[in-house]
Amino acid sequence: MADPTLSNSLEEFSLIARLVAKLPRSQRTILGPGDDCAILAPSRVAEVVTMDSMVEGVHFRVEWTTPEALGARALAVNLSDIAAMGGTPTACVVNLAIRPGLGVRFFDRLYAGMAKEAAAAKTDIVGGNITRASELAITITVMGEVPNGAMRRDSARAGDEIYVTGTVGDAAAGLRIMQGAIKARGKARTYLVNRYLSPSARLEAGRRLARMRPIPSAIDISDGLMQDLGHVLERSGVGAEIEVEAIPRSEAYRAVAGDDPALALSGGDDYELLFCLRRRESEAALSRRLGVAVSRIGRIVGRRQLTLIGADGTRQPYSGVAGWNQLREH
Amino acid sequence: MADPTLSNSLEEFSLIARLVAKLPRSQRTILGPGDDCAILAPSRVAEVVTMDSMVEGVHFRVEWTTPEALGARALAVNLSDIAAMGGTPTACVVNLAIRPGLGVRFFDRLYAGMAKEAAAAKTDIVGGNITRASELAITITVMGEVPNGAMRRDSARAGDEIYVTGTVGDAAAGLRIMQGAIKARGKARTYLVNRYLSPSARLEAGRRLARMRPIPSAIDISDGLMQDLGHVLERSGVGAEIEVEAIPRSEAYRAVAGDDPALALSGGDDYELLFCLRRRESEAALSRRLGVAVSRIGRIVGRRQLTLIGADGTRQPYSGVAGWNQLREH
Repeated sequence: MADPTLSNSLEEFSLIARLVAKLPRSQRTILGPGDDCAILAPSRVAEVVTMDSMVEGVHFRVEWTTPEALGARALAVNLSDIAAMGGTPTACVVNLAIRPGLGVRFFDRLYAGMAKEAAAAKTDIVGGNITRASELAITITVMGEVPNGAMRRDSARAGDEIYVTGTVGDAAAGLRIMQGAIKARGKARTYLVNRYLSPSARLEAGRRLARMRPIPSAIDISDGLMQDLGHVLERSGVGAEIEVEAIPRSEAYRAVAGDDPALALSGGDDYELLFCLRRRESEAALSRRLGVAVSRIGRIVGRRQLTLIGADGTRQPYSGVAGWNQLREH
Repeated sequence: MADPTLSNSLEEFSLIARLVAKLPRSQRTILGPGDDCAILAPSRVAEVVTMDSMVEGVHFRVEWTTPEALGARALAVNLSDIAAMGGTPTACVVNLAIRPGLGVRFFDRLYAGMAKEAAAAKTDIVGGNITRASELAITITVMGEVPNGAMRRDSARAGDEIYVTGTVGDAAAGLRIMQGAIKARGKARTYLVNRYLSPSARLEAGRRLARMRPIPSAIDISDGLMQDLGHVLERSGVGAEIEVEAIPRSEAYRAVAGDDPALALSGGDDYELLFCLRRRESEAALSRRLGVAVSRIGRIVGRRQLTLIGADGTRQPYSGVAGWNQLREH
């Protein structure tokens, strides 16, 4: 599309071409950037597609992080959606909204971070678009394949056991440390801030989960554990009981938050997977099978209510009529 | 992704779900919006994918048009990239960056326009994302299929005849009318402004072109005729001679610009197709075959230069060392 105010669209074109020309190609890519569309080989199995956007001032600040980490994170949050379906990413397209004050060197480094993240996930950046805007925004679409079927939000059933990978609340604590709302130093600070700035998509765990039968219901924890569990419950038409003490928290989390589970319950940006299994499995066996630490945190129930169970056995409903996110911090 | 400042993400979620829930489903869509990813049936043939973005203040102003026309246009410019490859669109994902001051009614109407455009192209909006920003931006990824092979920019050869569909320069004239740079009234004004605000993707013509053998080289005219031709020449490693008088201009264009070809040469946003055929065909026969008026405007030459030929036979190079867009107006 012609940009009536961008005076140098050939330069813009060259920027895209230059930035992505050096990226590797996976087997599915027939034609990468430089034409009206990228061309991909037929998919053979069902495909999944997701789109997410990171906007400066809303989701990040440029001064919080390196351009490389920013690029990697923008892709990782999309790959996490593919992981949540049990998919393997095959191709990405990237829209960059660029603003005055950020030079070519910045975008070179941003693309380098993105390219490294793409290569680690064995996927290609096959095309994209660059536009001017008043704030930096990175919008990415990732396509993937689900050879073993897709893990959906709508298939949780009463009696399913609920598990999460890794630990939760770390990224939310890291964000609050950068915002100055929580004080921390040393290793705990570094660990938590890094969990916010450099999340990993649980692609391998997702793929292995999708091979299980019946295929688990799953979601990635981007909005917060309770909020995302709420999406599963809503789509599946069920409720859940969560044992607060079972929610996995890191040493660093406990160093800054003590026993307070608030951020683990409601903080987002962890990009761990939450999934529901028909059979109870030992955490140890499941962790070995998925290649990542896994914790059982509760179970799905038929009654459409989300209940928290305390260490002393006390029960309290998590949400009221207003929705699952009633208690979410902002 | 958690938005640290958006206080009501459940409402955001509901907005997406509500806006797209009523959209129709094509045969390829297994699961639409509401999960981490949409799920699509296997593609069987090669796929194409494109991404484009429209940013308020850069590509449009809200007061220039209706929300419906804005939504339709945002999708049409992406569909045009699919048309330029000879493809059939199968699925789209939409990222909306919303700003304060635009209410739910605005986005309902915007989605209605987008949904109508999608339905006309028999494609589905299968998912998307909504984020806050300081300016409205609509970023769309469209996936399509190319059962007859893809028309690429890099396959033009010396001796090919160059054609364009429809007329060019209209949208650029329409844009300048809205900007107050060109005066026009009555039917000519309406026609030209409408050509800018409501472009059509030449999907059917693109599909029919892709059935020809050898498969034509093609591009859609989004940046301007000369600029886009330049992309074909650059990717194919060839040059071209263009007969200025042969460049198709509408009656309305002539009413406001007279015989001046400047906007037809360099104005963008027409979303017509430019294509190169190995054999010369009559405009009449080709127009019938493609279902749209077609004009022959010149031919591809081996020497890597772009030459304009005037009505009196005078020849002048269009560009210098700086690139094809040297003379482009801004």
